[in-house]
Amino acid sequence: MTEAAHPAAAPAPRSSSVPMTLVVALGGNAMLRRSDDGTIETQLARSDEAMAHIARLVGTGAHVAVTHGNGPVVGNIVIRNEAARELVTPMPLYIAGADSEGGLGFMLQLSLANALWMRGDESPVVTLVTETVVSADDPAFERPTKPIGPYYTDEQADALRASEPAWSFTSVPGSGWRRVVASPKPLRIVQAPVIGRLLATGTVTIAAGGGGVPVCEAADGQLHGIDAVIDKDWASAMLATQIEADALVILMESDRVYAGWGTPGQRAIEHLTAQGAGDLLESGALEEGSIGPKVAASAWFAATTGRHAVMCRVEDLDDALAGRAGTRIG
Amino acid sequence: MTEAAHPAAAPAPRSSSVPMTLVVALGGNAMLRRSDDGTIETQLARSDEAMAHIARLVGTGAHVAVTHGNGPVVGNIVIRNEAARELVTPMPLYIAGADSEGGLGFMLQLSLANALWMRGDESPVVTLVTETVVSADDPAFERPTKPIGPYYTDEQADALRASEPAWSFTSVPGSGWRRVVASPKPLRIVQAPVIGRLLATGTVTIAAGGGGVPVCEAADGQLHGIDAVIDKDWASAMLATQIEADALVILMESDRVYAGWGTPGQRAIEHLTAQGAGDLLESGALEEGSIGPKVAASAWFAATTGRHAVMCRVEDLDDALAGRAGTRIG
Repeated sequence: MTEAAHPAAAPAPRSSSVPMTLVVALGGNAMLRRSDDGTIETQLARSDEAMAHIARLVGTGAHVAVTHGNGPVVGNIVIRNEAARELVTPMPLYIAGADSEGGLGFMLQLSLANALWMRGDESPVVTLVTETVVSADDPAFERPTKPIGPYYTDEQADALRASEPAWSFTSVPGSGWRRVVASPKPLRIVQAPVIGRLLATGTVTIAAGGGGVPVCEAADGQLHGIDAVIDKDWASAMLATQIEADALVILMESDRVYAGWGTPGQRAIEHLTAQGAGDLLESGALEEGSIGPKVAASAWFAATTGRHAVMCRVEDLDDALAGRAGTRIG
Repeated sequence: MTEAAHPAAAPAPRSSSVPMTLVVALGGNAMLRRSDDGTIETQLARSDEAMAHIARLVGTGAHVAVTHGNGPVVGNIVIRNEAARELVTPMPLYIAGADSEGGLGFMLQLSLANALWMRGDESPVVTLVTETVVSADDPAFERPTKPIGPYYTDEQADALRASEPAWSFTSVPGSGWRRVVASPKPLRIVQAPVIGRLLATGTVTIAAGGGGVPVCEAADGQLHGIDAVIDKDWASAMLATQIEADALVILMESDRVYAGWGTPGQRAIEHLTAQGAGDLLESGALEEGSIGPKVAASAWFAATTGRHAVMCRVEDLDDALAGRAGTRIG
């Protein structure tokens, strides 16, 4: 970008204190929501919107790793694989995941570098295709629960049971069948050491997209891809732990974590200890679905590292890091 | 990979002299050939085979950036997009390219890290999703020539002309129509500075897959994706120039460059100056198709940097770098 006249008069001021290292986890719907038309223009507009906030954070001098979900996007890649099954040999789910790290990483790095550039900040932005080690013995593999890809008729499901004997299916009343895969816990982010070094030199790094490509370690130490879905908040917590991040930030659609959501006793939570978060999870007072794993991953990070996690909306990022918004855990 | 017992007794010896920095360009068919069954097992076997040679090169202490084509793979992604057009909004070609950087980068980094590990070498391996700047005024955009994706019937082509007004098509006698896109010259690899720093710290870096995702610079300096196909050898030559690599290595299926291939006067070429390579290209003595651009990109690198390029088979890598195989240009 050296050729164009720079829009900002001078580089954005950087903090002179030791920079904070942060892992910021974006939801999969930061780029594509189920209700969207799905065009590239809409996806890029959403990416631009989210990355404008990240650019502001980078402008404070923070060293930032951005992680993200891939929910709807990897689902679409799988649907395309299945639709073209007779034309082109389909790829396994873990390759679809790797593909999504490329496509989504490109969009996010483009949006973020543009947002930084317009602020007069030439911090480099890169995306690393990230692998996440899971255990082949993870109990999740015994009972796969995460639906992925298209709905199948009885006939299609029977044909797939024959051609893909390793696949599991779940019946969806009224809609046929869907493939289900395991969601094992991440043990280690393979590229974490490089990510840590990149951050230390001021390179904004997008990593662990979709939780990273799941890989298992063979007896000889070699790694191999495996079909699974890794929770991106748990992968982000693992990355933040490995690179010794000062804080883990998990972005969400809700302004804070709520206990008893939708009940008369509903209350917003500003702060929880790691222990308190664990108790709250056990009490059943938290919405199941997406908030539960976010709180659990945050509490694990806080308990493991003694540092804290922040859960907030992307537009509240600054306020939440200053303790004026969101929910702090730890 | 710290948990497993390490198969090699001691780390591979490293050269004590200043390490060579090399950009090594793999053909798109290093992972998938038109004649292959296209399964992930075949692609990974090919990737393992190529990366075993790269691992040996890394073992000499060289700092290596691996670039690669994406020919058949991105074509398959486009075919899947088109086959599922009624089910899922198709993505533009540049997103298919970014997807292929993720999927192929994952395969290559997995194979290479495994090969290094089995040699007792724990050098980290990463893949960077790479953008390549091209000019929107490149004359290539006026006359797109590179066919991409599926064949269309007359009716399908007419429908696409209406829904995708920016697309160009070429008639393929007997097979219908195919979309054609431009192949503009790379001006700059956006992530080159970070790639250079990664290499300097001993991180093997896979980059510029498929020539990189094509982006154009707007008047305000922001970058935007554009549908095009960038020659991976030219992108590799640009990357090697930007990071001041000691040499550019372009891998090919032929053992050397041949003048007058298939004629009675056919002769293998061991060495050409940049000027000599230019003259040979102009004389028409080189096979058109894939060898021409490889020689042209090599000659450009040699002329621009005063360094040299090597064109050889992957299995001749060591011998070619020692001047005992392949064709040296510059």
